[in-house]
Amino acid sequence: MALDVSIQISSRHRVFFTRAVFGSTDGLLARLLAEEGRQPVQAVIFVDDGLPAHYPGLIDTVTDWFDQCEVACLALPPVILPGGESGKNDWRQVERVWETIHEAKLCRHSFALALGGGALLDLVGFGAATAHRGIRLIRLPTTSLAQGDGGVGVKNAVNYFHKKNWVGTFQVPHAVINDTDFLKSLPPRELRGGLVEALKVALIRDEAFYRRIAEQRQALGHLQERAIHAVLERSAELHVAHIASSGDPFEAGSARPLDFGHWAAHKLEQLSDFEIGHGDAVAVGMAVDIVYAARMGMLPRDVAAHILNLMADLHFPIFHPLLAERDSQGRPVILDGLEEFREHLGGELTITLLEAVGQGREVHEVDAEEMMAAIDELGERPESNAPPL
Amino acid sequence: MALDVSIQISSRHRVFFTRAVFGSTDGLLARLLAEEGRQPVQAVIFVDDGLPAHYPGLIDTVTDWFDQCEVACLALPPVILPGGESGKNDWRQVERVWETIHEAKLCRHSFALALGGGALLDLVGFGAATAHRGIRLIRLPTTSLAQGDGGVGVKNAVNYFHKKNWVGTFQVPHAVINDTDFLKSLPPRELRGGLVEALKVALIRDEAFYRRIAEQRQALGHLQERAIHAVLERSAELHVAHIASSGDPFEAGSARPLDFGHWAAHKLEQLSDFEIGHGDAVAVGMAVDIVYAARMGMLPRDVAAHILNLMADLHFPIFHPLLAERDSQGRPVILDGLEEFREHLGGELTITLLEAVGQGREVHEVDAEEMMAAIDELGERPESNAPPL
Repeated sequence: MALDVSIQISSRHRVFFTRAVFGSTDGLLARLLAEEGRQPVQAVIFVDDGLPAHYPGLIDTVTDWFDQCEVACLALPPVILPGGESGKNDWRQVERVWETIHEAKLCRHSFALALGGGALLDLVGFGAATAHRGIRLIRLPTTSLAQGDGGVGVKNAVNYFHKKNWVGTFQVPHAVINDTDFLKSLPPRELRGGLVEALKVALIRDEAFYRRIAEQRQALGHLQERAIHAVLERSAELHVAHIASSGDPFEAGSARPLDFGHWAAHKLEQLSDFEIGHGDAVAVGMAVDIVYAARMGMLPRDVAAHILNLMADLHFPIFHPLLAERDSQGRPVILDGLEEFREHLGGELTITLLEAVGQGREVHEVDAEEMMAAIDELGERPESNAPPL
Repeated sequence: MALDVSIQISSRHRVFFTRAVFGSTDGLLARLLAEEGRQPVQAVIFVDDGLPAHYPGLIDTVTDWFDQCEVACLALPPVILPGGESGKNDWRQVERVWETIHEAKLCRHSFALALGGGALLDLVGFGAATAHRGIRLIRLPTTSLAQGDGGVGVKNAVNYFHKKNWVGTFQVPHAVINDTDFLKSLPPRELRGGLVEALKVALIRDEAFYRRIAEQRQALGHLQERAIHAVLERSAELHVAHIASSGDPFEAGSARPLDFGHWAAHKLEQLSDFEIGHGDAVAVGMAVDIVYAARMGMLPRDVAAHILNLMADLHFPIFHPLLAERDSQGRPVILDGLEEFREHLGGELTITLLEAVGQGREVHEVDAEEMMAAIDELGERPESNAPPL
């Protein structure tokens, strides 16, 4: 006998852009918490340890907000966890998330709030997704990378066996709230990170968005606030649309179509012991694949030049000496990134290259010699102003 | 700005009943493994430590099967893990599952096979669901409880903070293969466990199935093989149909409509330090709620009597002295099970009672005095033969 049924799961995925999320107790956050029937709902909040230094009154603000909020109670004081990869590298931090949820006696109808950068959201998200098989999570991303890219997705994970994101799950958060006030304290390199992912998604998906970025290169290059916010919003929108419409939100297949430039980026991050930030690494990784696509005749040379010039105007790095590093057998170390990228998703090697602005194309083979020639060419490239597209 | 999209996940859920699953390398298991494109696929298998004693050649049989199979390779020798709650109580076993998957370099397109009782399936299922955010899992349940009930579902978990299933996820397995040959070595109490869950689902969902069980009470009471298999198949079918059609396969709501009799069962298991098996505990829990429903005027007295008599004919226990235990304040300890049941799912207390055979009804309040009176009544009840329905 065989039983064969179809199981359908339908989830609502919402991303809000706002300011001063803890400013009013009858605003967006209270409305989202009030969606659970039995009130007041119980909540805990995990805060990135990078935040209190920049926002000295933050913990008090959060605590006061819950004190005055009628629909939700803070079951325990805010819990400060290490942000960045160090938190994801330390299994003890997962245990702290579980201990907090347990001590607070949260159930599946309670809320965990995660306030911080992408790594903290990943860490707390994994803890919340696996406690009682999933308690409600509200993500409050505070970096440009997280607001425009990683924080608006449906993945969570921590590092294990020294491998990035080896342990994790997929879970759709109750909601994502991007409070752009938190971007004010970011150093330029971090603020630029979100721009890199925005340019990435424009390049593979949305030519009009690319043109808008190119037109605003001055404002964006100077990290002008309103211009940055608009770009992050469009970036988040394209990411969310991809998750909803790709047909493979939980990545059962071998492709990860949005990960343009990421095979080299992941390897560069690892080779540099995460000294190179994700945004910078992706910028370099895109530059490598753009020159490679041009050399392979897939992308017109003048288009490649336009993109590289725009990246220079936006002050993105496009090269790093680690790209040229070789192992004891003389083999370029960066090329290991291709096999590791394949292993991570499994199945056939699938990377996204560009054939035009706004148009990615998946390829399953890479010519190693041409790739190294592309890296050499990139290293020799003088920075110059972008000609009109 | 607000983005609001719907994310749809559609999964195929398949449960097969077969014999001699490792008998032929071109049968069911090979076909399921061959569904992944790139062959041979990599696999690992985790085996319940309760099995080798009953099946001395089992590990060799499994290893030989993979040696001769063309579509799949065993990346590592079979890994034996502790079955039962002891495996789920020991976090080190989750780490062993992860270490095996890591050492075998499995990816999301590789397979983990879990061969054993429900606890082993839960443990391996959690490890597989969180490695690389989910590698493919094939469940091979070997007990009657797992073949008819727990093993055919979409949940996995381990125990944490001394709480059953505190850490876990939902994941639809690639397939479930019920090899009924494994039932042969089960002691009567364990074989009966699957019957208890079958009677449970008949009582709340399927009057015709209840009548069939009642008609075959002789054969089932003697644990006659063919009768048991037929009942397990129908039980699995009703469970799978519930998951697919309930509209809440991942239990986002407060109800767990199939958990008839389970609030008292979970508490009895815990109070007895898991000396009382799950099947026996559910039998007693159902008897309690049947008498309670009769006392409350929800279930006709003669129907309650018929069910209790059938349970006696099937050699199910219907009472346990721990039901009457009181704490130092004189309060019945069993009643704590109601609040713990609510906490586990969160939200409002929701338990399923019977209003007729085949017809469950959710209630949100329990009269503590009447419940204790029901337990007293049950304790005094003489076992007797069932009159016709």
